[in-house]
Amino acid sequence: MASLSTAPTFTYTPHYRPSAPSTSTLSYMLFISPKKSRRKLTAIFCSAKPRRARPDYVPNRISDPLYVRVFDTTLRDGEQSPGASMTSKEKLDIARQLFKLGVDIIEAGFPAASKDDLEAVKMIAKEVGNEIDENGYVPVICGLSRCNKRDIDAAWEAVKYAKRPRIHTFIATSEIHMKHKLKKTKEEVVETARSMVSYARSLGCPDVEFSPEDAGRSDREFLYQILGEVIKAGATTLNIPDTVGYNMPHEFGQLIADIKANTPGIENVIISTHCQNDLGLSTANTLAGACSGARQVEVTINGIGERAGNASLEEVVLALKCRGDEVLGGLYTGINTEQIIMSSKMVEEYSGLHVQPHKAIVGANAFAHESGIHQDGMLKNKNTYEIIAPEDIGLYRSNESGIVLGKLSGRHAVRSRLVELGYDIDGKELDDLFWRFKAVAEMKKNITDDELIALVSDVVFQPQVVWKLGDVQVTCGTLGLPMATVRLIDANGEEHIACANGTGPVDSAYKAVDVIVKEHVTLLEYSLNAVTEGIDAIATTRVLIRGENTHTSTNASGETFYRTFSATGTAMDIVVSSVRAYVNALNKMLGFKKLPGLVVNSENSQVSD
Amino acid sequence: MASLSTAPTFTYTPHYRPSAPSTSTLSYMLFISPKKSRRKLTAIFCSAKPRRARPDYVPNRISDPLYVRVFDTTLRDGEQSPGASMTSKEKLDIARQLFKLGVDIIEAGFPAASKDDLEAVKMIAKEVGNEIDENGYVPVICGLSRCNKRDIDAAWEAVKYAKRPRIHTFIATSEIHMKHKLKKTKEEVVETARSMVSYARSLGCPDVEFSPEDAGRSDREFLYQILGEVIKAGATTLNIPDTVGYNMPHEFGQLIADIKANTPGIENVIISTHCQNDLGLSTANTLAGACSGARQVEVTINGIGERAGNASLEEVVLALKCRGDEVLGGLYTGINTEQIIMSSKMVEEYSGLHVQPHKAIVGANAFAHESGIHQDGMLKNKNTYEIIAPEDIGLYRSNESGIVLGKLSGRHAVRSRLVELGYDIDGKELDDLFWRFKAVAEMKKNITDDELIALVSDVVFQPQVVWKLGDVQVTCGTLGLPMATVRLIDANGEEHIACANGTGPVDSAYKAVDVIVKEHVTLLEYSLNAVTEGIDAIATTRVLIRGENTHTSTNASGETFYRTFSATGTAMDIVVSSVRAYVNALNKMLGFKKLPGLVVNSENSQVSD
Repeated sequence: MASLSTAPTFTYTPHYRPSAPSTSTLSYMLFISPKKSRRKLTAIFCSAKPRRARPDYVPNRISDPLYVRVFDTTLRDGEQSPGASMTSKEKLDIARQLFKLGVDIIEAGFPAASKDDLEAVKMIAKEVGNEIDENGYVPVICGLSRCNKRDIDAAWEAVKYAKRPRIHTFIATSEIHMKHKLKKTKEEVVETARSMVSYARSLGCPDVEFSPEDAGRSDREFLYQILGEVIKAGATTLNIPDTVGYNMPHEFGQLIADIKANTPGIENVIISTHCQNDLGLSTANTLAGACSGARQVEVTINGIGERAGNASLEEVVLALKCRGDEVLGGLYTGINTEQIIMSSKMVEEYSGLHVQPHKAIVGANAFAHESGIHQDGMLKNKNTYEIIAPEDIGLYRSNESGIVLGKLSGRHAVRSRLVELGYDIDGKELDDLFWRFKAVAEMKKNITDDELIALVSDVVFQPQVVWKLGDVQVTCGTLGLPMATVRLIDANGEEHIACANGTGPVDSAYKAVDVIVKEHVTLLEYSLNAVTEGIDAIATTRVLIRGENTHTSTNASGETFYRTFSATGTAMDIVVSSVRAYVNALNKMLGFKKLPGLVVNSENSQVSD
Repeated sequence: MASLSTAPTFTYTPHYRPSAPSTSTLSYMLFISPKKSRRKLTAIFCSAKPRRARPDYVPNRISDPLYVRVFDTTLRDGEQSPGASMTSKEKLDIARQLFKLGVDIIEAGFPAASKDDLEAVKMIAKEVGNEIDENGYVPVICGLSRCNKRDIDAAWEAVKYAKRPRIHTFIATSEIHMKHKLKKTKEEVVETARSMVSYARSLGCPDVEFSPEDAGRSDREFLYQILGEVIKAGATTLNIPDTVGYNMPHEFGQLIADIKANTPGIENVIISTHCQNDLGLSTANTLAGACSGARQVEVTINGIGERAGNASLEEVVLALKCRGDEVLGGLYTGINTEQIIMSSKMVEEYSGLHVQPHKAIVGANAFAHESGIHQDGMLKNKNTYEIIAPEDIGLYRSNESGIVLGKLSGRHAVRSRLVELGYDIDGKELDDLFWRFKAVAEMKKNITDDELIALVSDVVFQPQVVWKLGDVQVTCGTLGLPMATVRLIDANGEEHIACANGTGPVDSAYKAVDVIVKEHVTLLEYSLNAVTEGIDAIATTRVLIRGENTHTSTNASGETFYRTFSATGTAMDIVVSSVRAYVNALNKMLGFKKLPGLVVNSENSQVSD
């Protein structure tokens, strides 16, 4: 039978009557109109609303109280996910895409982690941090740092080249973190935070963000105190993370409301949210935070990040776009949602973190009629089940374009279709792509958009070539000993041929590659997908490798970890695509070693930092 | 510059002061204690709390006001996802697992969809619907039906064999759905709902659930009216779906609170939530509904379902387990969380809907130290980042077990390890598994837990054998014409050999299989994953196929769709695993045709229903 002993007093609330002073509830409760129940909801398409203008950027205030800044941390928090390491070129590509997407702040990395990280952030600060669109928009480029001078110096060194640089510094404030991780008293933590924010400002950085790590589990009074101190020291944004993804939406909303109510000087800064997704509540928590007064949301593309990841940019932005006016008090962002699909695909490609088919907004099944399954008369009226128009996020239905590419299609037709699909490529990249396209078209009647995109990934989203695949030939099956012969071409154009036996065709071929390349690597993950329907489809293989005892880096918590490298390969033959992927991953790893400015210990290639 | 014109009045709420009469807010606001901010959070492990007893089952009331019923619709709503079709055997396996998990209600299918569906629900009603555990728990077996006599008859025919049968009937109540889908007036809709609930009760079904489809977009007054009518007609549970995943948590919480406050007779029934995930808010919406008085939550394992899926069982249950006492008013469920991982893996396997690495609770990266990446000294104290103990969801760290299996391991050691991993298999299944294990162990020094689980999937989670793979041999690469020879054994033990050429090794081998099996199928999806680290790992291939113009079924909205069949194959050679997967998928499709009780049109094998 039921036990009631553990339950405190519990009362049903039989009905909802808005109380007279609205300040008596969480601020997001304000947006519930008592008359709403009579309202008709006939037009809920996001596309019905035009994009609003973005307010001018001033670090510590926003002229429009309804504007919510989008702070993208795909390149920092997202890249910290297991296996999601990216090269500097990949980071730069993503940063450029984030510019197209219109994020307000790009957290480009953690410069103190390694020379690679510092160089990547610096490159982004110089290139993307100085791009200006026709409306005067320039993204803020932010670098993360722990609360120490070395980290802050590194962050400033990296971001100072941007038109709008920002340093983001953090220290843990929950008892469990202060005790077990920092081994510092509360007083020491306050003093460190205060002095380091002040130091960051003293370097000339006009924009300093401070985060009390694990704020969701921190003592409230202590939070108000430390936040008040860093405001006095010059912080412009206070970011409130739910580090362990532990808060319920109403609880996180209240945390933000409490901070807004009780922190001295809070009216002079922007409050920000940073919600982890451990209980699947990061989007709801982020929205609750915004409704309670946060005007910056920290998010990642596809919701990637450590453990269960962060709040998804696409979910938070679309929720505000679809329901902002109606039930979220008119809050809005400056995001160009038509760039969402392209951003999602690029991040999936580079991070190696695939998106599940039922992922909200960007999953393959998110739009019913995009599922690849033929459904007769599925939708009598698409509004019945669809609240977001696919075009709003940059998803176009291939069938509607009327263009079918095949072996007679010319270079111009291929390029036109690519532009329509959001890929603006030209020059040598287009040359390479076109030859791959022709080779596939020789074997296959029609080339679909998905296949074209897979080829783009294979040609464009790839590391610089150190080793190039010449040929591969295998024999395998249940009857004999699997065997592979591989021909690789090195950077000087010289050919190398090797053969090997293994437990299967891929094992054999990879061993043959190893005989030639002579790098000690571990294959951590291997996966393969056919891009389209039919057994004669293009297959894309993804591998994740780790060099043995090399390529270490430091994460934001100060721990050392081994860098891993993911890459893809595309072909109609799964063995060929597998070998391409492996060679690409090796190239990516070798490219890391050779980055300019990298201090390499000649004995064991370990990165010193 | 910012435009303020579109924004209605907007006020910041500077602080949170609980208002005197708690009834003035949404009921879930009650759970915020004004003193919480001073509370220390040192022990937040879910495992700290013992499981509470489950109240006895009475259809329309729960003796403990804090108990929340878990209604699992993986087999109905989840199976409706593109490509997630399951065989009757797979559905039965999942239903058995849901029994171990302890869900209160299993929605086993939509019996009117096809004879297959009816038979599957009936089998589950007979077998799982009559299992009783030591505490007297028996799951309710529920069948879905539209609001018509034919559907309700089919549902009753299927569920009546269960100890606790339930019929779940639904009709759309939003203007957009009534107008475009039903083409009925409000009055007609009310009359249909009332009379059909009454009809279901008249058949002898003591437990009838009613859902107003698209309630989230329905007119409130109309909702209260139709719900009041169906209560009078004998409904025991009222399920409130946010069909298009459109509601914000506070909005959905208010919808439930409003229904609770304004529906005549509501005190005599259970209110239920059913939240779609289109904006990534389904878990938050479900919790908000429970906090507002819903005492049944409709969820699916892994959150699968059409489009962006449904609320995830694991997220909702863990949120209640981790935070129920503290901030959710003491709400709790009867779920045995230690069965979550096993349930998740089985559903991933059978539905073919993979889970992204950063999926909350059940994703591969959800527990940092389970990521497969070596992280030195990552966690000084695991409580710093981990709010759920992995063991609580049935996830055991392989490294901690101290058991390493290899070629000298005996049958007993293999079985013991399987039991520890949650697989209780014996008899012929264990025999088959053990021989596969030995074959792999001959080629590989150590067999990890993940590899063992992959072999279990290949041996246990498979359809009945029609065709069996004898041998396969391929030659492929960039230099020549890919070629494959396949030897298959039919149900009578006769051997068939064929060879074929294709664009790659898999294309060639599949064409060779087609030459023998002579079924017209389309390969919709193909993917392959290595199970563990290292190039000599076991690879699992998954394929999704569709028979040409055969195997149609009807979904809950009345539309016809083509059934698709997914299956996996496991081997150390990717070509062999690919062929195994294809043969298994063909077997699954052929098994569908041969189900007893199925009316097959001899001309074209089309299912008539």
